[in-house]
Amino acid sequence: MENSDKRRKIINDPVYGFIKLKNEFHYELIEHPSFQRMRRIRQLGLTDYVYPGAFHSRFQHSIGAAYLMQEAVDVLRDKGFDISDKEEESAISAILLHDIGHGPFSHALEFSVVEGVNHELMSLLYMDSLNEYFSGRLLMAIEIFTDKYPKRFLHQLVSSQLDVDRLDYLCRDSFFSGVIEGAVGVDRIIRMLTVADGKIAVEAKGIYSIEKFLIARRLMYWQVYLHKTVVAAEEVLIQLLKRVKFLYSCNFDLFLTPSLEFFVKNNSEVIENFRLFSPSLIISNFDLLDDSDIIICAKMWMTSSDKVLSYLAKSLINRNLPKVHLVDKSFDDEYVDEIKNRIVAHFGISASDANFLVTNSMISNKTYSPVLDEIKIVYHNGDIVDVAEASDMLNLSVLSKEVKKYCLCYPRF
Amino acid sequence: MENSDKRRKIINDPVYGFIKLKNEFHYELIEHPSFQRMRRIRQLGLTDYVYPGAFHSRFQHSIGAAYLMQEAVDVLRDKGFDISDKEEESAISAILLHDIGHGPFSHALEFSVVEGVNHELMSLLYMDSLNEYFSGRLLMAIEIFTDKYPKRFLHQLVSSQLDVDRLDYLCRDSFFSGVIEGAVGVDRIIRMLTVADGKIAVEAKGIYSIEKFLIARRLMYWQVYLHKTVVAAEEVLIQLLKRVKFLYSCNFDLFLTPSLEFFVKNNSEVIENFRLFSPSLIISNFDLLDDSDIIICAKMWMTSSDKVLSYLAKSLINRNLPKVHLVDKSFDDEYVDEIKNRIVAHFGISASDANFLVTNSMISNKTYSPVLDEIKIVYHNGDIVDVAEASDMLNLSVLSKEVKKYCLCYPRF
Amino acid sequence: MENSDKRRKIINDPVYGFIKLKNEFHYELIEHPSFQRMRRIRQLGLTDYVYPGAFHSRFQHSIGAAYLMQEAVDVLRDKGFDISDKEEESAISAILLHDIGHGPFSHALEFSVVEGVNHELMSLLYMDSLNEYFSGRLLMAIEIFTDKYPKRFLHQLVSSQLDVDRLDYLCRDSFFSGVIEGAVGVDRIIRMLTVADGKIAVEAKGIYSIEKFLIARRLMYWQVYLHKTVVAAEEVLIQLLKRVKFLYSCNFDLFLTPSLEFFVKNNSEVIENFRLFSPSLIISNFDLLDDSDIIICAKMWMTSSDKVLSYLAKSLINRNLPKVHLVDKSFDDEYVDEIKNRIVAHFGISASDANFLVTNSMISNKTYSPVLDEIKIVYHNGDIVDVAEASDMLNLSVLSKEVKKYCLCYPRF
Amino acid sequence: MENSDKRRKIINDPVYGFIKLKNEFHYELIEHPSFQRMRRIRQLGLTDYVYPGAFHSRFQHSIGAAYLMQEAVDVLRDKGFDISDKEEESAISAILLHDIGHGPFSHALEFSVVEGVNHELMSLLYMDSLNEYFSGRLLMAIEIFTDKYPKRFLHQLVSSQLDVDRLDYLCRDSFFSGVIEGAVGVDRIIRMLTVADGKIAVEAKGIYSIEKFLIARRLMYWQVYLHKTVVAAEEVLIQLLKRVKFLYSCNFDLFLTPSLEFFVKNNSEVIENFRLFSPSLIISNFDLLDDSDIIICAKMWMTSSDKVLSYLAKSLINRNLPKVHLVDKSFDDEYVDEIKNRIVAHFGISASDANFLVTNSMISNKTYSPVLDEIKIVYHNGDIVDVAEASDMLNLSVLSKEVKKYCLCYPRF
Repeated sequence: MENSDKRRKIINDPVYGFIKLKNEFHYELIEHPSFQRMRRIRQLGLTDYVYPGAFHSRFQHSIGAAYLMQEAVDVLRDKGFDISDKEEESAISAILLHDIGHGPFSHALEFSVVEGVNHELMSLLYMDSLNEYFSGRLLMAIEIFTDKYPKRFLHQLVSSQLDVDRLDYLCRDSFFSGVIEGAVGVDRIIRMLTVADGKIAVEAKGIYSIEKFLIARRLMYWQVYLHKTVVAAEEVLIQLLKRVKFLYSCNFDLFLTPSLEFFVKNNSEVIENFRLFSPSLIISNFDLLDDSDIIICAKMWMTSSDKVLSYLAKSLINRNLPKVHLVDKSFDDEYVDEIKNRIVAHFGISASDANFLVTNSMISNKTYSPVLDEIKIVYHNGDIVDVAEASDMLNLSVLSKEVKKYCLCYPRF
Repeated sequence: MENSDKRRKIINDPVYGFIKLKNEFHYELIEHPSFQRMRRIRQLGLTDYVYPGAFHSRFQHSIGAAYLMQEAVDVLRDKGFDISDKEEESAISAILLHDIGHGPFSHALEFSVVEGVNHELMSLLYMDSLNEYFSGRLLMAIEIFTDKYPKRFLHQLVSSQLDVDRLDYLCRDSFFSGVIEGAVGVDRIIRMLTVADGKIAVEAKGIYSIEKFLIARRLMYWQVYLHKTVVAAEEVLIQLLKRVKFLYSCNFDLFLTPSLEFFVKNNSEVIENFRLFSPSLIISNFDLLDDSDIIICAKMWMTSSDKVLSYLAKSLINRNLPKVHLVDKSFDDEYVDEIKNRIVAHFGISASDANFLVTNSMISNKTYSPVLDEIKIVYHNGDIVDVAEASDMLNLSVLSKEVKKYCLCYPRF
Repeated sequence: MENSDKRRKIINDPVYGFIKLKNEFHYELIEHPSFQRMRRIRQLGLTDYVYPGAFHSRFQHSIGAAYLMQEAVDVLRDKGFDISDKEEESAISAILLHDIGHGPFSHALEFSVVEGVNHELMSLLYMDSLNEYFSGRLLMAIEIFTDKYPKRFLHQLVSSQLDVDRLDYLCRDSFFSGVIEGAVGVDRIIRMLTVADGKIAVEAKGIYSIEKFLIARRLMYWQVYLHKTVVAAEEVLIQLLKRVKFLYSCNFDLFLTPSLEFFVKNNSEVIENFRLFSPSLIISNFDLLDDSDIIICAKMWMTSSDKVLSYLAKSLINRNLPKVHLVDKSFDDEYVDEIKNRIVAHFGISASDANFLVTNSMISNKTYSPVLDEIKIVYHNGDIVDVAEASDMLNLSVLSKEVKKYCLCYPRF
Repeated sequence: MENSDKRRKIINDPVYGFIKLKNEFHYELIEHPSFQRMRRIRQLGLTDYVYPGAFHSRFQHSIGAAYLMQEAVDVLRDKGFDISDKEEESAISAILLHDIGHGPFSHALEFSVVEGVNHELMSLLYMDSLNEYFSGRLLMAIEIFTDKYPKRFLHQLVSSQLDVDRLDYLCRDSFFSGVIEGAVGVDRIIRMLTVADGKIAVEAKGIYSIEKFLIARRLMYWQVYLHKTVVAAEEVLIQLLKRVKFLYSCNFDLFLTPSLEFFVKNNSEVIENFRLFSPSLIISNFDLLDDSDIIICAKMWMTSSDKVLSYLAKSLINRNLPKVHLVDKSFDDEYVDEIKNRIVAHFGISASDANFLVTNSMISNKTYSPVLDEIKIVYHNGDIVDVAEASDMLNLSVLSKEVKKYCLCYPRF
């Protein structure tokens, strides 16, 4: 916060300029230690290994998305849609907290640190906890977040094909990575928002902006989020954690920070089954788990006697990344086996250990999923159609089809 | 690096766009683990506690400054000044490595982690070590860095009142903090550079750009680098480390990562007297010391039985910052004592312990130090004068006078 | 030119920053009065009636495109393609001059001032004349412009689906109009350029940038170039000139500047048949014909006794634009007739005169015309395919299909 | 206007993004023909001869300044200062119209077209006329403009050392010229505005922004507005008009558009003495006078039999500018005479005619005039001081001293 004076707190955001949240409650949320923790979680994991500027934190993204929510509410009210002050507060609270459950390096460790539990579930656990802390004030925010609130368009602003989350992260990630082509006309899109049949829709003259939004998103996926060197770096991180879990289960001696150990030990059942552990125990451990735990442990592991562990740790810390092939068709088993054999021979490790060094994964991106949640276009005459139908440019079948790529990583030597 | 193809490696920098270093050797330097470590050192310490976007790393700054050096060399050659390929390589190497000796959180811990040793000395230690690693290829870079190379303007481009270091950090810090007023016309200033009497100078028609550079720098100092909340946060960090050293010297049991312990234990004499320790021992420890060591330890210390330590650690991690007064005159001793007494009473600690919580420091910024190294302006007729003389706008006596402010911090309660 | 010193002339372009043309000859071309005339031709006709910032001149665009050509040549040479200094000079000359034949308000008057003659023909006439003036130095530029030069990729850089003309105007028009969504990743696209089978192509990893380029272009068409209010304003301008020609042919007395009169009198056969008039006569008149001729005449015509002429002139000067309907289907004749009848009644004019006030036109935009000139994508393995085939996103049939819209304009009253 | 729908009209400004004026009345003002005329007046005269992008119109500037006024009113109300809706409307109307009296090429012709009458007087004449047209609705706007309204800070926002006029033109001229160093932190300055003792003041923490504003303004003066080539171009334009007046007074036959002739004939007494002419006659002529009148006449004059006239006209149209010396001391009379003699000999003209070709003028810029209207800084404790006193950086005596430069122009041959 630039200004310690509570009455006129302004946040200086390099993406949008001066941001002012009108409701003092949101500054209270931001000041809570669990929210402050997001300062220590990088928004894009290891993407800075390819785009050095992409080093921004999830903290900034959450505040940026909250600002866009405030703007969207203003626009919709201006067009005559009824949104109460409490609804506005809650929608902004929901988006402020939507990513609070992210673990270290955001997505990369989502399934390896706390197996089987995604960040949305964890965010919900946090919201419940904060709701108690703030004496029930987050109740409506939780309803909006979980799509149980009757005005469903509020949920859609938090989470849908065209939510303020995506609008902010495309702009922000584009800004910090320097991939300016990923920038989205946020101002215009927000101004074109409307509500039709109780759902978020876009006025017809905004259709070109929506086309560009979908194309920009696709570009950011393949050029940034799924850039092959980023994928390789995150693969190293994932395998490193998998190796740790494996060694831990074998009672191999390795350094772990207390919070990391809590999750390595307890695995998925920790959170899947909240009855085994009190939520507050989970949260008190998660509160202290951030990017620094991974970095500090990896630095320790560089000198481990386990060859695989030390190899992966050094690879991560020194940015000594594996060779990576990213192609459209899956790899032949024989080809992969041949590489594994070379790794086995070179490192003097077992075939099962080699699986931590040679990884063969599938990555995918579906630009637009009409089944879940279509982006609706509203015409002057009141007609409402799906954007993929309204646009003669975009290929419907492609938009809704998952694009799969296959990724093979293995050590250079 | 965006492009893994060695022949055409391009770095996508959000500040300057595409950056291409022409000499492959510089990519080798960048790939060295000691250089990669700068990814884990934030350029502006805790400045993101006020400007959330200011979260960028020293890694980016070093590459940005190297890019500007390459541009400056091009301009000077274009104006007929002789710079050999080897000199160009060395000047760029020198600026790439000028900050490699920065400890965690950049300046904040400069005097508390490794007492008495500034980052330039440490950078030099690194350069010597890398020079050995690269078989003497950095010899001329070291001469330039230490101002022993005959063409002294090359040293001035690395370090002077108008070096590419400052040009880059003003632009970069302004970009990431969102304080756009701090931006500097880098392109124009570099184009106006020339050499006069063997020293870097600026063509007369660039004088307005230089005035603006000096004013922008001043603005960044008081608005960003010495913003009172940033000063308060860094004061917490400094006192935290001082407390750790104190407790360590009392054999109090506290968690330390191995590299941090090496420096806490050995203190200044480690580096002041290189004979006691081999440089390679110092470097191998420093290589593994970065922001994450401080964060992870502070998280551990939050539950320490030492009240002062735990208070400061929680203050840092949860951004629960002290009250801070920043004024033009020094504080009355009585006033400070009264506050200390209240802290003693409130926390139930000794008066000497209270000195870690109540700090009374002086901060200063001298915008321009003509004594050291004047910015020279060259007129068409060949006259060379100091900028403070050439500019009828800037107040010479003020420019060269240190501005002192006094800063009193103490816990809120 | 910012700098009068010939040796280091730099142009300060708000879109790309400092532009420096390496070859002094291009500054000679720019200084020629026929080139300077482009300062007085607005790039986007009457688009500033909708986007007030879009007031830039064709002069700027020509220099911007020349800068991009220079960049493209650098990239291609860097990739090993042979381009001689003379070829570079000529390609840059060709693009500098490609729009020199534009009449007042660029496209708007293309077919009404000099009926039947487009600006490319006129540009060619100019090039021939300048070639003589510069003693044959533009010969190769003319060959490149007319696609008679063997290295056909040079022509494609001047004029194709992916030429530096389009790259510059999309960036520039987006910048000045404030429609930032139309911005194109020029830097990246130029870096991805290559030559395959003797033609310009794009490296495979640039495909997302090309997709975005095509979408941005489409967006600029419908949001800016063919914005219905822009179309209405240009319709007024076109009808105004048609009325003038009609009245002139009836010997009606009206004010005309000498150069405008030359073209109103002589019509298309002037240029279609160069034998009737010497090219130098045409050029000497065209040299003095620019936006100001139209404005000054229109101001005079506001008080004409011809109702239609004065109505259209006032409409243009005071931005009192007609009502406009822009729809996907053509209008019923009866509907149009009914409107014409109301205009006849209201203005007390004949039915044939009403045709100047009620206009029913078709506008179209084809985003991508593979038949003429496909954008080729080159894969690592050497495969070359058309972008519409390479992209699973873009709808081939749509891309190559003309989109037609129907536009009905008539006075408000 | 981007949007023809009156209820939600938005203007797309490349400098500030989407601009929305809240009060429908201001759109009525904008649509008036006298306001539309400003589209045909370039903001920076012939500055595009040096900075090709600086081709923007006074129309854009007026709307931009109105937007900033709206923002400033919002900020001041937010801080508790009472501003009624009528006062807001009037302040915005006043700034919208503050430049409506500018003649062709803005400042350049201020004293040559309508001798002795500056644009503020002409703007006032327009405001009176529009006030009648709008049935007295502009009465308060006129009081604010003429500083007769009791809340004097409203006048200061229109016209003072720190008005929205300057804030907009510095930003806008910097944006279009590409001289990014001239950009001003408009957002921050407006947020720091307050009222003290009934006058506009700036909060103490905004002092660095004010310093930067003054330095940026100074930079824009010497680098753009008074760039020696711009000065030379405007000198040509001024002498051209002076020659026209001289020839007209000799009954020499020359082409003049009707509106230009009205002012050439009637000279200063036209407006000085409104009793001779009805204001409506003056306005009806001024309404039709814009940049195009000068351009079209100059094109005609290129072939005049008067050598001086044709020389100056060709110089202007073909950007064939005189040689220019810009120095700190006035020129020796002998030196100037010697040049005049060479011109007399070369052109075969009389000595008195040579005075139109050889000009020796003084230009000046005072960055800050405390006598008129100090920028006040308000401290937390309520103290109010002048910025030149509050800033230890800025040189008071220099700030208030006029900087004079001497400019000698004469034909190249």
